[in-house]
Amino acid sequence: MGRITARRPVTRIVLGAEPRRRPDALAVEEPLEIRVGGDPLSVTMRTPGHDVELATGFLLSEGVVRDGSGVAAAIHCGGPGTGGEENTYNVLDLTLAPGVAPPTPEMARNVYMTSSCGVCGKASIDAVRTESAHTVDADPLVIDAEMLATFPDALRAQQAAFDKTGGLHAAALFDGTTGELLVVREDVGRHNAVDKVVGWAAMNGRIPLSGHVLMVSGRVAFELAQKAVMAGIPMIAAVSAPSSLAVELAAETGLTVVGFLRGTHMNVYAGEHRVRVPARAVT
Amino acid sequence: MGRITARRPVTRIVLGAEPRRRPDALAVEEPLEIRVGGDPLSVTMRTPGHDVELATGFLLSEGVVRDGSGVAAAIHCGGPGTGGEENTYNVLDLTLAPGVAPPTPEMARNVYMTSSCGVCGKASIDAVRTESAHTVDADPLVIDAEMLATFPDALRAQQAAFDKTGGLHAAALFDGTTGELLVVREDVGRHNAVDKVVGWAAMNGRIPLSGHVLMVSGRVAFELAQKAVMAGIPMIAAVSAPSSLAVELAAETGLTVVGFLRGTHMNVYAGEHRVRVPARAVT
Repeated sequence: MGRITARRPVTRIVLGAEPRRRPDALAVEEPLEIRVGGDPLSVTMRTPGHDVELATGFLLSEGVVRDGSGVAAAIHCGGPGTGGEENTYNVLDLTLAPGVAPPTPEMARNVYMTSSCGVCGKASIDAVRTESAHTVDADPLVIDAEMLATFPDALRAQQAAFDKTGGLHAAALFDGTTGELLVVREDVGRHNAVDKVVGWAAMNGRIPLSGHVLMVSGRVAFELAQKAVMAGIPMIAAVSAPSSLAVELAAETGLTVVGFLRGTHMNVYAGEHRVRVPARAVT
Repeated sequence: MGRITARRPVTRIVLGAEPRRRPDALAVEEPLEIRVGGDPLSVTMRTPGHDVELATGFLLSEGVVRDGSGVAAAIHCGGPGTGGEENTYNVLDLTLAPGVAPPTPEMARNVYMTSSCGVCGKASIDAVRTESAHTVDADPLVIDAEMLATFPDALRAQQAAFDKTGGLHAAALFDGTTGELLVVREDVGRHNAVDKVVGWAAMNGRIPLSGHVLMVSGRVAFELAQKAVMAGIPMIAAVSAPSSLAVELAAETGLTVVGFLRGTHMNVYAGEHRVRVPARAVT
């Protein structure tokens, strides 16, 4: 079960103190392709472990089986295509019990991913790098840690609906030079909030979003880091933690990831060169 | 923009005090079907508003367009099939600009939903009611509010990985009679954590899960309420807020929804008859 968390080097910034580099634990995120009778049914970004439970529960939630007796066998197999690939334990094939109808073709979802990647983290990252029309690694953005520290309060001040319901994610776009908040969107789905912000920018002729910071109210999963890169955004900042795969994508593409941005504290997980910490006053 | 939040009656329970019935604001959740050139591409559960931004950002994230110029037009249309249906503003059709290649068939995802429902909240709920092999409305579970109040600490005590990373959702199953915690699963995706718990139960011959309580560390979106009903679980309890559609599904199916379960406080959004509050001592 060592794959539930992963240790990664992190730069811990506390305003007024020296930044410190130390290892930190991240939640592991990797894709799992669920197959039924050899046919791909779904890809989900999950934390490895209890994969057979995950797939069985998924089939039950989707109405394919009505209880555990509907699944006769489950086996982790190699990557898509021919045999012989290294087993990444990210493809699970279920065999249904006799008499259980297989999922309809309409039920297959999210399988678009499997055609271009081997369903391991590295391949997913490569797919993003190949598909993105914009690159972020050469973006010259550098932002003061003090300015970054003001973003959560600016975002929160605009979260009208969250204050009423406690049930909405928010995403916002900041100008990395002036610190101006350009747009805030709220949604029950964090990926939707980010899509709305990116869509706002697209509809206003602002793509690629070089020099901008995407701020989110929650965690940074792979999908959000992916959306940032696809829109040409060089930095994503979050109130909570990033996943392992989000940080790996960031390291590969040149995206800066700031997490646990709260008060005077923040962690920088990738692209540290874009966060400027003032020289500490000699006392 | 009145559809971002919805007011619903809620029973507010504070241990040691009289329960109070009052309206509360919920985050609105409704499905949006995104079509490109008339062809269904994706269904996402979202908060209504800024739908064109959402769809444009989604297409950009998926690599269909590289900036806003790739989308020539967007129009909300009626339900699937023939014209003339009431416009629910939950179907959005985008027209790509000349020269922009349409999404590949492999990219179409989550469209399985559209074949069985009109992509409005009520139809989504009906689909769950039709598909579930188990019913929860007649489940005789009644649980003391005091016992419920112990569940968050019991769950948290088992969240080993969350304590290290701050980046994982958790789901747990409790016996509603004894209060025993049966299983805890953690995952970067909240739906995966619930699938793992349900899968565990399925693999152990415990489906349907009558008399049990599903506890989650975060919010209750429609999808989680749906998973509970599909597994025959009569009660879902959460540390944070439910969405509007989760509560509507609960009211229709007989699922009990408890939210903001923290310390001695909780809100009951549906199925109040299953939460027993002791008669207050006369002082």
